[in-house]
Formats: sequence, structure tokens, C-alpha cells
Amino acid sequence: MMRARVAYAGAIHEAHPAGNGVQLADGRVLREEEVVWLAPFEVGTIFALGLNYAEHAKELQFSQQEEPLVFLKGPGAVLGHRGFTRRPDGVAFMHYECELAVVIGRTARNVSRDAAMACVAGYTIANDYAIRDYLENYYRPNLRVKNRDGATVLGPWLVDAVDIADVTQLGLRTYVNGTLQQHGNTRDLVTDIPALIEYLSSFMTLAPGDVILTGTPEGVVNVEAGDEVVCEIDGLGRLVNTIAADAVFGRRQARP
Amino acid sequence: MMRARVAYAGAIHEAHPAGNGVQLADGRVLREEEVVWLAPFEVGTIFALGLNYAEHAKELQFSQQEEPLVFLKGPGAVLGHRGFTRRPDGVAFMHYECELAVVIGRTARNVSRDAAMACVAGYTIANDYAIRDYLENYYRPNLRVKNRDGATVLGPWLVDAVDIADVTQLGLRTYVNGTLQQHGNTRDLVTDIPALIEYLSSFMTLAPGDVILTGTPEGVVNVEAGDEVVCEIDGLGRLVNTIAADAVFGRRQARP
Repeated sequence: MMRARVAYAGAIHEAHPAGNGVQLADGRVLREEEVVWLAPFEVGTIFALGLNYAEHAKELQFSQQEEPLVFLKGPGAVLGHRGFTRRPDGVAFMHYECELAVVIGRTARNVSRDAAMACVAGYTIANDYAIRDYLENYYRPNLRVKNRDGATVLGPWLVDAVDIADVTQLGLRTYVNGTLQQHGNTRDLVTDIPALIEYLSSFMTLAPGDVILTGTPEGVVNVEAGDEVVCEIDGLGRLVNTIAADAVFGRRQARP
Repeated sequence: MMRARVAYAGAIHEAHPAGNGVQLADGRVLREEEVVWLAPFEVGTIFALGLNYAEHAKELQFSQQEEPLVFLKGPGAVLGHRGFTRRPDGVAFMHYECELAVVIGRTARNVSRDAAMACVAGYTIANDYAIRDYLENYYRPNLRVKNRDGATVLGPWLVDAVDIADVTQLGLRTYVNGTLQQHGNTRDLVTDIPALIEYLSSFMTLAPGDVILTGTPEGVVNVEAGDEVVCEIDGLGRLVNTIAADAVFGRRQARP
């Protein structure tokens, strides 16, 4: 099953694919652009992998890691399908990153590699933006690189794990204004999904709604305000995001 | 006002100090040990400062930073007052870290230093544990160091900002089994609270419930299973935590 969470007419609804649109759980059928798409599940802890495709690590001129390089993203960075991600004025490099996102469905602690896949509820697409200007050191947990508003785009669908025949053979593609710019395949993951769950659950407890962004393949280029970025993964659909200028948002001050 | 969130008799309640115990919003007065203390507010994004007291940075042999070193903690690490934090078997160094935690009360974006304090709802105590064994590089966002279960202890009270006369002059103290091991004062913060809010809100939006752990002063020592760790901050009360052996928790497997 594929399901989304959408806001429509004063409430948040579970929605399912219906032609080119969606059907709400209450039966209403709507066009894709009539609803506001939220992240397709209640998001818990967001784990993100750095350098988990060898070719992408080369592209950024980082050497391979001895253990998985995992960092956290905050809930404030989350955005759904068809949202706008702000491109800050004055930065040189804003990169999309198409990633397979693994959604945990069951509390997991000390899970072995063999038992790991039973903890997976399903999958969605992540577009995990990075502002590369500040990147002195990949280790540095620089929030300015990876944790801006709208930097973690998730959706459109949460697809049940049972509906993905082979998660180790999924093609990933990113199109910028219709031009294919990034493509890869989950067969090239450095640390695969069972190993990631085994690793993380060996020292902390994973909970339903936690999500692991498994890293991005090579092929990142700079995007500019106005660009439409579409991330596509076999079986998971197409995640659309638009880059917006800082000025679209304006400078807001808190009103004391 | 000082308020806590506690679980008691089938529900979660707001609670207030009453002698040595608590009074629930519905009027019941209970002893401190009769309730389960949760984090005193609904926790959003957790920002944690590294090396924000110069003497502590020296103690860990790190040089001072050019900009605030901020990293994220996940919701799974949060624990309330009187909880148990697991000390993993086979690690050499587990350090408490007593920190002033600043709780955001108002959505904030591009807030100037002058307007920053109006965004603060209040304060609580954080005990932000670190497993130091893996610390090759402070920048490394190593979840094994800072994000284990129960590593972010918060409470007992959320104290309204208006009730703290001068947040720049608060004494912090940590006692291990009754012996004073760490003491400092918020006057020694390298980056102060208005500057932290200005910095973070300059590139992302802060939301009510977000919390900034402002760093720890010098005086961290290793703790062992069975130790009682009490963190105290002027005006905020005493946050009690007990270190528990790995074996107390046992090794759980997810049950497929």
C-alpha cells in the first residue's frame, strides 16, 4: 500500500493514489495540487548517512569511512511533496540529494542483521538538501549545511516494505527542470539497510516513525531559485520540490 | 512559575512544586517518588552546544571555536528527572554534563540579539551525558558519543523566564554520590543566550518547544553503574539521575 498524509479542508488526512490524484480515507478524490502534502508519516528521529555511496564520496573528495557516518536532522527541517525550499542569498552551492528513506515500524534494540528487515515499515523518497559553502569538514555537524528549513523533503508516499520486491536494486534519479542530473542504484550502498539497523540499534533504541536517509549517489549540482527538483525512486513515485529565493520568504522578525 | 510534566495513575499531568512533592493541576498532592517525571515540556528540536565554556574546552584539549559548535540530539535520547541512564558495558569514560537549557516559547526567525530574550519561554536543567571513548574529533557527529538512550536528561521543572532575575549569573553544580564534582556559572558562557538565538534563527526557524543546551563547564569525571548524579542550577532545582548497568536493561531483541 502507498499512503500519504495531506492537509485539505481544515484537517489532516491519510490519502492513497487515485489516478493522477489522491483519494482521502473518507472517499473524496482530489487532484494532486488541491491538497497540501505533508511528510507521509509522523516523523521521529531522522538519521542521515553521509558518504554512503562510494562514487559520491569521491565526487566530494572525501575518503571512505571506517564506520557509517550518521548524523541527525531536526524536525524543523521536514517538508512534504510540492513544497518550497529556500535558497539563502549569497551562498554558492546548494545541492539536492536524492535518497532512499527507510521508515522504522517497530521498536528495535540490539537487532541483528538477520532480524533487521522485520523492523522496517516501508520506504519513501528523501531529498536532503545541503548548502555546501560551509563544508570544511564532513564530520562537522554544521547545521548551516544540512538543517535549514525545508532541507529534508520527504514523500510523497510511504510505501509498505512488502510492496517493494527488492530494495537492494532500486534506481534513483533526480531531474532539475526536467533534465536528468543524478542517477544511481541502491545496489551501490556502502552500508546496506540491515547493517544500518544493526549498527544503530546496537547502541540506541529505534522507534516507529524513525527514519534513516541512506545517502545519495553521485551527480549533485548546484540549484538556483526557481528550479524544479524532482527525485524519483523505482516503486516509490516522484517527489517534487521547488527552490525559492530568500526574498520569497522575506525577513521576518519575531514580534515581541 | 515552575511546572513539571509527570505520569501518574494512567495519565500525564502538569504538576507544580508542593513542599517536597508535587501538586497536579487537578489538586492532588503527591510525593516526588510517587510520580514518573517526564521532560517538563513537549520537546521539539534539541540543539546542544559543544565547548561553550572555555575551561571545559581546555579540559578536553580542544581549541576554541570560531563560531558556535551546535549539534542536534534526537527525541529518543530524552529522559526525565529520577530516570536511569544506561552505562554501556566496556566503555571507559561516561561523563555527565550539567547545562542550562533554554526553552523557546515563540516561533523565531531572523531575531536580533536585542529581541532574542523575548523568544525564551523559560529554563530547565539538562544533564547531557557523553561516552567519551569514541571521541576522535569533536566535530564528528558521532551518535555513539552523545545520542544514546537516556543521554539527554531534562527537568525537573520548566521555570518561566520572568522568574529568573539574571540568567547570566546562575551557578551550576554537579554532585556524584553527594560529592561536588563540577561547578561553574553561566557568566562564563562563551556564546551567550541572545547570541545563540540570533545565530540559530539567522538560518533556520526556531519553534516553541525547541531547546538549546548551552554547554557544560569544566569538572567532568567518569561515572559508574550505581552512581547517583545530581545536577543543580540556581533557581531551577535539582535534577537527579542514576547510572544503571547494561545488565539492568538486558539485551532485548526485536520480536519479529
